[in-house]
Amino acid sequence: MLVGGIEAGGTKFVCAVGDTSGKVVDKICFPTRDPETTLDEVQHFFAKYEISAIGVGSFGPIDLRRDSNTYGTILNTPKTKWKHYDILGRLERDFSVPVFITTDVNAACLGEYKYGAGKDVNSCLYITIGTGIGAGFVHDGIIFQGKNHPEMGHIFVPQHKDDDFKGVCPYHGNCLEGLASGPAIEQRYGKKGHLLSDDQQVWELEAFYIAQAIVNYTVMLSPERIILGGGVMKQERLYELIRKYFMKQMNEYVHVGNIDEFIVAPKLGDHQGIVGAFGLVDGVD
Amino acid sequence: MLVGGIEAGGTKFVCAVGDTSGKVVDKICFPTRDPETTLDEVQHFFAKYEISAIGVGSFGPIDLRRDSNTYGTILNTPKTKWKHYDILGRLERDFSVPVFITTDVNAACLGEYKYGAGKDVNSCLYITIGTGIGAGFVHDGIIFQGKNHPEMGHIFVPQHKDDDFKGVCPYHGNCLEGLASGPAIEQRYGKKGHLLSDDQQVWELEAFYIAQAIVNYTVMLSPERIILGGGVMKQERLYELIRKYFMKQMNEYVHVGNIDEFIVAPKLGDHQGIVGAFGLVDGVD
Repeated sequence: MLVGGIEAGGTKFVCAVGDTSGKVVDKICFPTRDPETTLDEVQHFFAKYEISAIGVGSFGPIDLRRDSNTYGTILNTPKTKWKHYDILGRLERDFSVPVFITTDVNAACLGEYKYGAGKDVNSCLYITIGTGIGAGFVHDGIIFQGKNHPEMGHIFVPQHKDDDFKGVCPYHGNCLEGLASGPAIEQRYGKKGHLLSDDQQVWELEAFYIAQAIVNYTVMLSPERIILGGGVMKQERLYELIRKYFMKQMNEYVHVGNIDEFIVAPKLGDHQGIVGAFGLVDGVD
Repeated sequence: MLVGGIEAGGTKFVCAVGDTSGKVVDKICFPTRDPETTLDEVQHFFAKYEISAIGVGSFGPIDLRRDSNTYGTILNTPKTKWKHYDILGRLERDFSVPVFITTDVNAACLGEYKYGAGKDVNSCLYITIGTGIGAGFVHDGIIFQGKNHPEMGHIFVPQHKDDDFKGVCPYHGNCLEGLASGPAIEQRYGKKGHLLSDDQQVWELEAFYIAQAIVNYTVMLSPERIILGGGVMKQERLYELIRKYFMKQMNEYVHVGNIDEFIVAPKLGDHQGIVGAFGLVDGVD
């Protein structure tokens, strides 16, 4: 049984055909343009295959309230052409197969949970730290979702005593995303993170913030494992630093077991989103 | 069908007999002593009734990992005689009926969700602000629980620029519980909260911290309603102040609808815990 997966990102779309074991048969990647042109390209790619269902991890915010008239519609977004665009409706019309939709980071979390770094646990939180910060939580095979979907990157965390940076979040200034996303690093130091590789202080501060967020996530969600991905986490030294600050800040209040197995890197490179989209079709297990 | 409910607190036990509609038939309250003496008193109270099951909301931390050998056992607690006490096992031996156990704040949340201020919504977070700070989350009739249970009162929140209080949490110092619990108020100002009723600044600062925590809870859990209870919330002006700071801090990033229906007072006085214990028996609905 072939299924379709779509990683609908704000800058690029990835479409793939594969199966619910996570195997990819064919894949394409193209830039995100206006909705109709982009979805025409999606249609063109999948037309070659007989697919039985489609899973979508979409950029957002997106309406995921099951009882809503606009379920599956993009909500407020700076990408004005996509505002209020009914991506789910268009896909259902094009393909006449069941379409399952969630957020991009939820799909990525499901991908790691089913096929990657969360395969051996009952619950995991996947955090992506890049242009923005977001997190998805899968528990007993089910993607956690409240009334709509969480926006975990926007939690408030205490600012480091030596850091007076105002933050880059247009809504909150110095929320986590405002203090620790890729653009926050760039604006604080005047250059992009990968050009700051040698500056230990940059990564100590970054780890301090991420660790605080992980303490908050842990006392709130009690996950079995935390998987850290996204562009900023390409700085591999961050894993050790984050573990160090987490242990200091948590101070053994909640026992998380072996820290090296609690805070980990993704196992699926950059493919967790697309196989997670396949995983949506598979449902829970 | 009569059921038993137990609110197993660190300072007092409440036992009640009633039904799963939330009706209380008989009730008793006594101080918490050593485990065996206390549980003897529990046994004595229920012996008069034919109960078909018991629900328990217990102080903690408590082992709620379903696959654990010590499921239903009190974990580390400053009350040394209760440390590692198998409260679930003792109740099962005494009564030979099914016993359902969760944390005190989870039971209180379930009580408000089923019979009180959360009756008309699909998900609610109940936060108690008193000697400690804790929160429970019920979603679609199910009590949220991760690997073990959350400890949401221990999240980190940014400290107010004019507040240099070190906090009273023995683990984290200035986590939410360290900054905003009843003992934090007492230690910061040198007297108990109810003696500070007229001091507007005390409650502005308190509301500032609680609101920040609610922003974090909201972006993480996306609840439909937030119910604030516990001793500190007896200061009724706090509700309006918390709503004011919440709106300012959230800055319309997540739309929560009518704020007066989003952040509310409990509807069950101090009975949410005991009827929530009845509710545990009823299961989900």
